[in-house]
Order: sequence, then structure tokens, then C-alpha cells
Amino acid sequence: MEARDETSRSTAQNAQLALLLEVSGTPKPGNVDREREYDDLRFEHFLAGAVGALDGFELAATGEPIGQAFERAIAGMSNQQGGNTQFGAILLITPLVAAAARGNLSREGAEAVVAETTVEDTVSFYRAFDYVDVAVDDPPEGMGPLDVRRGSTAESAIRERGVTLAELMQESADVDGIAAEWSNGFPRTFEAAHGLERSSGPVTNRASALFLALLATEVDTFVETQHDDETALEVRDRAKAVLDGEENPYELAAEFVERDINPGTTADIVAGALFIALERELSV
Amino acid sequence: MEARDETSRSTAQNAQLALLLEVSGTPKPGNVDREREYDDLRFEHFLAGAVGALDGFELAATGEPIGQAFERAIAGMSNQQGGNTQFGAILLITPLVAAAARGNLSREGAEAVVAETTVEDTVSFYRAFDYVDVAVDDPPEGMGPLDVRRGSTAESAIRERGVTLAELMQESADVDGIAAEWSNGFPRTFEAAHGLERSSGPVTNRASALFLALLATEVDTFVETQHDDETALEVRDRAKAVLDGEENPYELAAEFVERDINPGTTADIVAGALFIALERELSV
Repeated sequence: MEARDETSRSTAQNAQLALLLEVSGTPKPGNVDREREYDDLRFEHFLAGAVGALDGFELAATGEPIGQAFERAIAGMSNQQGGNTQFGAILLITPLVAAAARGNLSREGAEAVVAETTVEDTVSFYRAFDYVDVAVDDPPEGMGPLDVRRGSTAESAIRERGVTLAELMQESADVDGIAAEWSNGFPRTFEAAHGLERSSGPVTNRASALFLALLATEVDTFVETQHDDETALEVRDRAKAVLDGEENPYELAAEFVERDINPGTTADIVAGALFIALERELSV
Repeated sequence: MEARDETSRSTAQNAQLALLLEVSGTPKPGNVDREREYDDLRFEHFLAGAVGALDGFELAATGEPIGQAFERAIAGMSNQQGGNTQFGAILLITPLVAAAARGNLSREGAEAVVAETTVEDTVSFYRAFDYVDVAVDDPPEGMGPLDVRRGSTAESAIRERGVTLAELMQESADVDGIAAEWSNGFPRTFEAAHGLERSSGPVTNRASALFLALLATEVDTFVETQHDDETALEVRDRAKAVLDGEENPYELAAEFVERDINPGTTADIVAGALFIALERELSV
């Protein structure tokens, strides 16, 4: 871990700043950004969400269990009227904060944090769903007792089955982009951080450019969950058309907002990449 | 002081959120906002400034000396490349945080905090100028040794003269809007908080409307310092023209940015008012 003087940003503060920079990148077709918002999900809700998440990041940075840190961050995030603002981003960033605090912010370091998760972490993870409504798919057949939407009431079922948080994420890795990152050493997030580090200019512009590049590469699993596979494929292809100069990003942003298409998983990965880059050498 | 559960925002976090909401209000003629920025002073610098200020607000909330809390907040704020982002707002908010933490966020409560400041607070206040360049006027004749731009090197002169921070502010109250607030029980800030509480709608819209209303009422002392009295009067009158429907606020915002006119003191008072309102009942 790098030495820090008392006035430089802490690891937890870099995580908070990553959330703020992510939402401030514009244009970011379909998501809330500095210039686009929904009546019931506004830019200011994301500001309050980032303010509230800090205490949870601080728990992760001091070595508290990941599940507990995550639950605390979500509880703090939820102190605003917009609902779910940064659930996925916080889920992605929390283990990275723990890895950074151990002085090993690398794919291996993050994998080690994930591998050490316990059944208690799973219980805490479910409790986080008590604070906020999150769009998720129905659980597979026979997994009803472990439906995350049951929140803290799933506790006895979790303990009975003895599922660690790493195992839980593994089960969803095929259908959820954040769970896939958790299960495979955060490959897209670290790769995206490299992309940020290689770019130049205002950080929020670099973040929105990264968002478009990622969106054009893989389908967004949040769009798949919220809409369907066809919509998710369309989103990917139209992001590619923007990169190819065939579509106007501002018009696409307006259309996606109109159609309520929110590529949230892609935004979460940008937030994770911003955190990694801030911990390394990205200056704001 | 109201009881808070462990997941609600702390007083220090409300101060941080006030900084974030202030800069996000738009249009706010002349200042950086969500949609307007300067090449060398960008929205993202204000985000990083707010992240960095939190530790200082926390010191104020735990009863540490105001000067020390302020110096810490400015040190944290300065961890970005934009320079002075929120110096005045932090100076205004820090004693309010202390008053709130004592359970008396009122004009009397804030006056009591100011009245208790010591020579040590003045020394810390000067040290804060080591971290960032702040636009200030030349000191009056004979006051050269107490030029704030001397920063920590003024320490012996401060101790020799035995000036408390309250006394120092009193000396500048005629020419500096923040010093005037400090010296008179923060009248404009508390009045502005009432204005926010009476309004409705998205908080950032209420903040930008408040900014315009304040700008139309009194000359901005930062504009006086940065430019001259004539410019400050013009700014006031043109803000009034916006309120009267005679000028377009977006065009005025573009013009002021072009002319490098930044009504910073007015923005600081909006930030202070947001903090007070968040501590009371303003929900985001």
C-alpha cells in the first residue's frame, strides 16, 4: 500500500469519488447523468447515495467482513428518495476497497477477498435488500427460499444451505454482469481501468467514453433483466453505431431515457474502473 | 439534537452533501455548475473538493477547534487540480457544523461558536492558505504582516497581535460577504435556508433559484474583489433582470462564464443554506 499523507484521499474516499465521477460523465445513453435524469430518479439522488455509501466503504477498508461493509454502504446509500441508485456499483467496488486496503489491488487480490467470504457475508448481503428495491430476475426453480428479494427473512434458509457470498455470486454469474465480475477476478473492471489510465482529458469525459466503449462490447445484464435479451442486443449494437459515427450519442441518450432503458451494469463497471484508476495514478 | 439511527446522514455528511448539491444547481450564472465549467476549473474538481472536505467537517462535528477543522477541510478540498473550489463555502459551513453538533443550529448557536474562537483558530485559518490560492484584496495599510496570503508564515505576527478568528472576521466584515456572515450571526444564510424550506421540487433546482434570488439582492463581494464595484453592481442588476423575465438565465450564464465573472460568495451562502435545511427537514 502506498504511503499517504494525512490530507490525501483515503481508499474509502476514492470509492466515494468514483461513484460521483461515474454519474457525472455525460452523455451516457440511458442512465442518469449530469444532464439527464428521470422525474423520480434524479442526479441529486446519486449525490446523496454517494455521500451515504462512504461509511460502508470505510468498514471494508478497515478489514470488516465484506457483507457487513456492503450492507452498511447500501443502508447509507438508501437515505434519499430515488430508490436504488448505486447498488450494483457498491457491490462491485466493496471487495476492491478491501483488496486495496490490504495493499493488493489486483485481480488476484480481489479474488482472494471474494474467496474468503462466508455464510455471514451472504446473510448481510440479503439484509441489504431490506433497504431498497432492486430489479432482479425470479430465482431458478427450487431456489425460492433464496430469492434475494426476501431480504433478511431469508436468513434461516441461507444458514441451512450454508451458501457463502462467493458461491452465491457464482450461481448468478451467467446472468448478472456484477456476479460475473465477482466470480472471475473482475476482468472487465481491471481492463476498463487500464482504458481510463491510457486516456486523457477531463475525467468525466473519459468515464463517459469508457461507458460507450463497454456498452458496445457486451450486452448489459441489467437491461436484459429489466427488459429482454433483444433489447440488450439492440443497446449494444446502437452503442457500437455511436462509436462508428453512425448515431448521435445525445439523441441515443434521449431515446433510451424515453424508453426507460438503463444500462446499469455497464455504469457499475465504469465506477469500479474509476475506483481502481483513482487508487493508482488517475488525478482529478 | 435529533436522535439519528446509524444509517442516517451525520452532520458532517450533510455538510458534504450541501457542497455537492450547491455545485449541481443549474443555471447559476457565472459559476461552475452541472452544465457549465471552465477548462481549468471543472465540475469534477468540485466533486473531489467535497469528498476531501469531509474529514474537516467531522472534526468540527466532534468539537475540535474551528480553525483546526477548517484547515483540515481545506487541505482535503485541495486534493484536486482545480485550485480553490469551495474555500468560502467551507469557511461558512464549518461553524454551522459545530453549532449543529452542539444541538443549537440557530443564529445564536452559530454566534456562540464564533465568539469562542481563539488566536489558535486564527493561526490555523492562515495555515489553510498554504494549500490553495484564494483571491483576496490587499490588506489595509499597516496590516501587511497579517496578509492572509502569507499563510503559516504569518504565525508570529498573529500571536504577537493576539487576534482571534472572530476579531479577524470582524475586520473584513465590510468587504467580505462570508466575514460579514461570521460577524453578524449568519443572517443571510439562515434567511436563505428558510427560503429553501419554503420551496418545492428537485433540490438542485431550488438551489439555483435561491442563487439567482440572492444574487439579485446584494452585491457579491467575491466579484467585487475579483473585478470591481461596477461589475458587482451589474451582476446584481442583471440577476434582477432574470427574475423580472427580462433576461435569459442561460444566456447570462454563458456570458458571465465568458467574462470570468464568478459570484462565489453568493454560491457559498447557498451552500450554507443547503446545510442548514438538510439538518432540519429538507429531503433529497
